[in-house]
Amino acid sequence: MSEVIIIGAGPAGLTAALYLARQEVKFLILTEHLGGELINLDTISNYPALGTIKGLELARKLKEQLSEYAVEIKEGVSVKKLEKKGDKFLVTAEKNGQILQFESQAVIIATGKKPKKLNVKGEDLFLARGLSYCSICDGHLFKNKKVAVIGSGRSAASAALNLQFLASEIFLLSKYPQLKVEELTRKQLAQSSKIKILAPVLTTEIFGDQLVKGLKYLDQKDNQIKSLEVDGVFVYIGFEPNSDFVAANLKNEKGEIKVNERGETEIKGLFAAGDVTNSPYKQIVIAAASGSIAALSAIEYLGKTSSTFG
Amino acid sequence: MSEVIIIGAGPAGLTAALYLARQEVKFLILTEHLGGELINLDTISNYPALGTIKGLELARKLKEQLSEYAVEIKEGVSVKKLEKKGDKFLVTAEKNGQILQFESQAVIIATGKKPKKLNVKGEDLFLARGLSYCSICDGHLFKNKKVAVIGSGRSAASAALNLQFLASEIFLLSKYPQLKVEELTRKQLAQSSKIKILAPVLTTEIFGDQLVKGLKYLDQKDNQIKSLEVDGVFVYIGFEPNSDFVAANLKNEKGEIKVNERGETEIKGLFAAGDVTNSPYKQIVIAAASGSIAALSAIEYLGKTSSTFG
Repeated sequence: MSEVIIIGAGPAGLTAALYLARQEVKFLILTEHLGGELINLDTISNYPALGTIKGLELARKLKEQLSEYAVEIKEGVSVKKLEKKGDKFLVTAEKNGQILQFESQAVIIATGKKPKKLNVKGEDLFLARGLSYCSICDGHLFKNKKVAVIGSGRSAASAALNLQFLASEIFLLSKYPQLKVEELTRKQLAQSSKIKILAPVLTTEIFGDQLVKGLKYLDQKDNQIKSLEVDGVFVYIGFEPNSDFVAANLKNEKGEIKVNERGETEIKGLFAAGDVTNSPYKQIVIAAASGSIAALSAIEYLGKTSSTFG
Repeated sequence: MSEVIIIGAGPAGLTAALYLARQEVKFLILTEHLGGELINLDTISNYPALGTIKGLELARKLKEQLSEYAVEIKEGVSVKKLEKKGDKFLVTAEKNGQILQFESQAVIIATGKKPKKLNVKGEDLFLARGLSYCSICDGHLFKNKKVAVIGSGRSAASAALNLQFLASEIFLLSKYPQLKVEELTRKQLAQSSKIKILAPVLTTEIFGDQLVKGLKYLDQKDNQIKSLEVDGVFVYIGFEPNSDFVAANLKNEKGEIKVNERGETEIKGLFAAGDVTNSPYKQIVIAAASGSIAALSAIEYLGKTSSTFG
């Protein structure tokens, strides 16, 4: 039996692992894939002290820092159920269709978030046939083609900016009159000759035959449904927490796990960290810090007190 | 007038600066010195994704990341008074005996913490004459000499471990029967042939003539006052927040500034981040993250909304 099970291996989970490893806690990481959402990010410039770095490279560095400790990471594992029986946690998971069970004294949930769906006609049909939630993963499929990016925030803007090095023309569809992005980003978008912003508009349908041929949207300026011919559609309308396996009473109305300033949930021994929690801002360094907080609290819970660490 | 004044330039202040700079907020940093407490730290191995790094090098990297933005840092500045008049903050500071005044719409306090004093006879008298609060700064003065390190936590243990490469013999005096350190650290201490732990003991006096000659301590095992001849004494008994200029009602009983999960104090427009706050754990990555949180909240306060950044 492990002392701690960490579920998830993004910045929060890997930082929790670093802190547990340095305290010689016996723990196990269960994750669908290493790096969490980092693997979907291109350039990161706001992680303090790392300058500008690719998401994959940051994931590699986080993992590399664990290499001097004995850390067991089980990849390809999807957690389905989490129960507390007496003083023990029981984690039920699936790997390649097989059911696996793990036990521990404490659990840190660091499963992050996943892209929200548009919920419009054609979205499921054209997934991986021109529709994608990840420009880093699929952008290369649209070299010299026209694409649409749907969304109003930093991740949509970032996807549009990345795609200009591949696609011939990028339509950025925002439901708000103004994009919700940093000033620097706003300028970069304005300076691009390839990016055209359509706002405020609501996407209503994705259409095509075998592959995406375009989308329809409601132009809120004249209330007309219009058609836009594109070969690719990237959806960046926000995220939702990966918390399906967590009991409803531990979550807020967004499905985020409620934690206090020590990363504690309402269940003793159950901690959460990173973007799956109700932290007000979702940033990589904040996720990493919350991983260290959850680990330090777990160490205290195990009676291996950390409260006076310098 | 600045939109924001950041007071302090350690991990919290410099990360707040990074986030403000990227949003093109007009701000100013006031600080006694760059790097904050990092400049007193030797090896850091628990800052996620940086592997093992020296404190000074981490401070350099945090500053370097700001170099592509227009950031004004005023060094050698000690803040004496902070007032809110109407919607504006008025900061009164001192530099080289001169009084300076600055105005802003919002303030982020990130002044960190400083070493606690022992409050025993001889402590003030022998400061910089054999007594020090910083082994990294002064360790080289005690090559092949005997030294004492006073303290029970990670920073005391870390100082003792660093000093074994310089001093001939190190006495680590803890008031607790057991040091409050990570298991890894406990093992490293036990493996050192130069480090001897005296515990539980209470230091009662530092003595000498021109320079330190030794110290006296109460051995709690037999209740005897004993004398220990050493050439240097390093005091590592914890820290207190640099918050003298902050109104008492904004602080807890330890003098830490009370903040919520958004880095907000009880005064609108006044934010705090890092080790000067009541955050339960004091760690570099946690300080950095809290700097980004305070900055994002300040950006919202200024009406430059950040709540939907991806």
